[in-house]
Amino acid sequence: MTDTTSPGDATGIAAQDGAYARPAGALDLRRVGAHPDNWYPVALSSGVRGKPVAATFGGERMALYRGASGAVHALEDRCAHRQVPLSMGVVEGEALRCCYHAWAYRGDGRISQIPYLPKGVGRPPRGVRAYPVREAYGLVFVFPGDPAQAEATPLPDLPEYSSPRHRTMTYSRTVRCHYSFMHENLLDMNHQFLHRGVVGRLRPQLLGYEAGARSVEARYLFTHAGGRKNRGAGLLAAEGIGGSNSADVMTIRTEYPYQTLTLVPEKSDHPVFSLWVAYVPEDAEQRTCHVYGLLMIEKPRVPGAMRLAWPLIRRFTERVFAEDRMAVEAEQRAWDEQGEDRNHEVFPLILDVREVLRSNGVPLKPLARPCG
Amino acid sequence: MTDTTSPGDATGIAAQDGAYARPAGALDLRRVGAHPDNWYPVALSSGVRGKPVAATFGGERMALYRGASGAVHALEDRCAHRQVPLSMGVVEGEALRCCYHAWAYRGDGRISQIPYLPKGVGRPPRGVRAYPVREAYGLVFVFPGDPAQAEATPLPDLPEYSSPRHRTMTYSRTVRCHYSFMHENLLDMNHQFLHRGVVGRLRPQLLGYEAGARSVEARYLFTHAGGRKNRGAGLLAAEGIGGSNSADVMTIRTEYPYQTLTLVPEKSDHPVFSLWVAYVPEDAEQRTCHVYGLLMIEKPRVPGAMRLAWPLIRRFTERVFAEDRMAVEAEQRAWDEQGEDRNHEVFPLILDVREVLRSNGVPLKPLARPCG
Amino acid sequence: MTDTTSPGDATGIAAQDGAYARPAGALDLRRVGAHPDNWYPVALSSGVRGKPVAATFGGERMALYRGASGAVHALEDRCAHRQVPLSMGVVEGEALRCCYHAWAYRGDGRISQIPYLPKGVGRPPRGVRAYPVREAYGLVFVFPGDPAQAEATPLPDLPEYSSPRHRTMTYSRTVRCHYSFMHENLLDMNHQFLHRGVVGRLRPQLLGYEAGARSVEARYLFTHAGGRKNRGAGLLAAEGIGGSNSADVMTIRTEYPYQTLTLVPEKSDHPVFSLWVAYVPEDAEQRTCHVYGLLMIEKPRVPGAMRLAWPLIRRFTERVFAEDRMAVEAEQRAWDEQGEDRNHEVFPLILDVREVLRSNGVPLKPLARPCG
Repeated sequence: MTDTTSPGDATGIAAQDGAYARPAGALDLRRVGAHPDNWYPVALSSGVRGKPVAATFGGERMALYRGASGAVHALEDRCAHRQVPLSMGVVEGEALRCCYHAWAYRGDGRISQIPYLPKGVGRPPRGVRAYPVREAYGLVFVFPGDPAQAEATPLPDLPEYSSPRHRTMTYSRTVRCHYSFMHENLLDMNHQFLHRGVVGRLRPQLLGYEAGARSVEARYLFTHAGGRKNRGAGLLAAEGIGGSNSADVMTIRTEYPYQTLTLVPEKSDHPVFSLWVAYVPEDAEQRTCHVYGLLMIEKPRVPGAMRLAWPLIRRFTERVFAEDRMAVEAEQRAWDEQGEDRNHEVFPLILDVREVLRSNGVPLKPLARPCG
Repeated sequence: MTDTTSPGDATGIAAQDGAYARPAGALDLRRVGAHPDNWYPVALSSGVRGKPVAATFGGERMALYRGASGAVHALEDRCAHRQVPLSMGVVEGEALRCCYHAWAYRGDGRISQIPYLPKGVGRPPRGVRAYPVREAYGLVFVFPGDPAQAEATPLPDLPEYSSPRHRTMTYSRTVRCHYSFMHENLLDMNHQFLHRGVVGRLRPQLLGYEAGARSVEARYLFTHAGGRKNRGAGLLAAEGIGGSNSADVMTIRTEYPYQTLTLVPEKSDHPVFSLWVAYVPEDAEQRTCHVYGLLMIEKPRVPGAMRLAWPLIRRFTERVFAEDRMAVEAEQRAWDEQGEDRNHEVFPLILDVREVLRSNGVPLKPLARPCG
Repeated sequence: MTDTTSPGDATGIAAQDGAYARPAGALDLRRVGAHPDNWYPVALSSGVRGKPVAATFGGERMALYRGASGAVHALEDRCAHRQVPLSMGVVEGEALRCCYHAWAYRGDGRISQIPYLPKGVGRPPRGVRAYPVREAYGLVFVFPGDPAQAEATPLPDLPEYSSPRHRTMTYSRTVRCHYSFMHENLLDMNHQFLHRGVVGRLRPQLLGYEAGARSVEARYLFTHAGGRKNRGAGLLAAEGIGGSNSADVMTIRTEYPYQTLTLVPEKSDHPVFSLWVAYVPEDAEQRTCHVYGLLMIEKPRVPGAMRLAWPLIRRFTERVFAEDRMAVEAEQRAWDEQGEDRNHEVFPLILDVREVLRSNGVPLKPLARPCG
């Protein structure tokens, strides 16, 4: 796939129906797993304190705990002995002790003690799997894939998170759909009809887009065509979204496996906010994902204004998100019932992002279900 | 099968056990689907107003909506685009617009607009399936089968519904069992033991029955043998059911796919009430059905008496129905656990109605469940 | 398997890891069913009075009822006619009448009456299965296996239950795990870490154990190493468990299919209490068991002391049991997710009790689940 820009055909609609059907023989996108050789957030830093907590990536259960040194460790969440979750255990220094028969593990997953195993007696060589861990942006990231790739794989770069000119609103919640529905939802801004009750009539116009081997980036011009205005939206965009006579440029980018969105108001040369999002599959079939979002908002010039605006922005974004969730979960339910993807997509950049997600992911193994 | 009348053997009990086992090789009745080439109620008329509503027949999801003309339309409940339910959408004139990307459909299922599809660009040829719809008796009927058969297939004929001498009580609820259990329940009046707490000791005596290719009709003489009387029952039957010294004739008829019940008191020549019922499968496996019932009751001569009797009749019928539901749902659970029909039926007319339901239905396809 | 005693290696830890892996080709222990040719409690005697009640053994549903004679009968819980549960029925003398069409059964499962079946007409030869029943120790025992074995198979012998010097506390609850997890839990006293919040730091030391073809018996010395004391525990063991400076001998025995535990305080020659437990599989896959326990406690010499101690003992044992349940249910969930036993056991007597449970049980048939 090569980069393409199509300013001449900004609408990006194909003249021939059927041109965008799933490629023959291609794997169903909803059966493609998120590639594990990436850093995925699996918890908020603030949630990992004295007690271990359970986390998950694509059905792999993990026990996260913060050792006495302050470092967070991530172990396979099953004691090597009898598979009781280590997240039910107790932190001791840098070690984690299983709640049941008190086997203890180091942060690298090796067994450090079996209390009733006397000295001189061989200890089971097998411990549990440990995952590389990094903390950044208030999130705990793990690397669920090949540990040898972890070092060379960069975390996302979010300079605005620690910039004094910005303040960050953090989101964390579960959505019961395959992560690909989330990418498609955000990239296809023609879905503003869904938010008509919150944002009024917004007219998104595609200015152009680029697609690469690991990315799709779309630029939209947003104009407000009347209807109800939302105060939170106005505050968020400095009277951009939802404000009258506004014409803002919204840029949405899937850069595998993350997604970003920025808004540049009409008379500005830099974003008033940018959003970074990761969709982390929870279950083995990856029909549920956990959304971690960081909304980095430029502070207004008037001191104290941000503090007043904060709850309104929270409320506005929660409402928009609730509507998106309703739609993508309905998509997942339809897929579940039909057992396959029957989408009939007409928007080229969505077809491109589907190809990006398909080619960068990994096929999911069917679940073992005993029959007969 | 030919019509048979058996007044000489009114009890209808076979002399030889085992004569009534399921015919060798015959399909399990609980795996036979209701034939779609019939009119089935799927909603109350009063429930289809400004907003679209979801309905279902045998796992096929439908979006019902009432257009500006007042006509009700029934569309496949999945947008052609991304399969989000159209019942989550918005009615616009005679059209239905999907809530997500605002694709709009006509009542015939064809796409009338894709807002972001510019003029001159080809629209996807495929819309969604539309079902023939008719409204009658306060119900919305759809024809889930071959639309070409709809015109020639009559709706049930219920002249009493609009007669000024009658008043109709309407029932609508879900019962978690295959529809066939409902037919068998009503036709086999030997189950009065189930209702002993409500109706006292009723002695049903089979007077005779007829079976045809699409129907079974049974006539019972009901005498009251003591025990508790129910006021609602008495009112319903003009002191027939539950009244002392009563001897009423109850006629129950399965006329595929519907069922009727009428009661003629001892000293009368016409029914004091008649009941029409349809059992509409909800899920694809048809292990749940929605019951729509119309109980058409002759008004008493005393003005105002009906108004007083109404809540008592409602309460009585609800109690009887709750007991029936308990029994048929227990039957379905037993079938679910055993995975097959192990009924050992001894009542000939029940064996006949089973054959009517089997031969007029359609085999259910096993659900696709991924294994391995 | 021969009896083995290992006082010389009281810790019982193997020097070679991997020596205790599941024997090649051996059936997964969690797929071994409890052998039906034993007496299993399925209800408390006090719960079987005027109305029939539903019970279950390994997915076999039973209707228990007490006839006019006072004897309890156990029938297959599905009417031969239409498989409605007989436990929804009505007791009449020694018979049980189905709630639906009023078929009546004797305690031996034979049909005694079909009310609408006229004299001279053949009755279906098949009734329902009846199970041998015995009542003892406040429990209703059934024999789910070959009825011919019932007579010769003894009930457990619990003389302390009726001894005036003891009082019995009865337990009855469901635990969502395979019964084998329960045996392993109780026999492996190294799990005291699980109860650290209730009993403080207990140091169990294995004194020795014996394993036979149907039994494993382990003896532990318990010393208290500090931490919180529990009043209930102290009362239960006459200041044994949880009391300071205590050193009690606890003996735990699996005698297929039951389990017992006795505690002999340091300066005594007989138990201060003994516990008898049965784990009765509820579902066909035996992933849930019902625990019936009888805790027979020696009465203290001070009159009235038992009455005061009773609620504290109840509270203490309930807390300990709740912790055990948390652990064994977590084990079952891990097995469910992994689809197989991945235990890595290092304690020899646990390996022996697994072999006892495996060799004395029966393989579970996989559940019939329709595919495709």
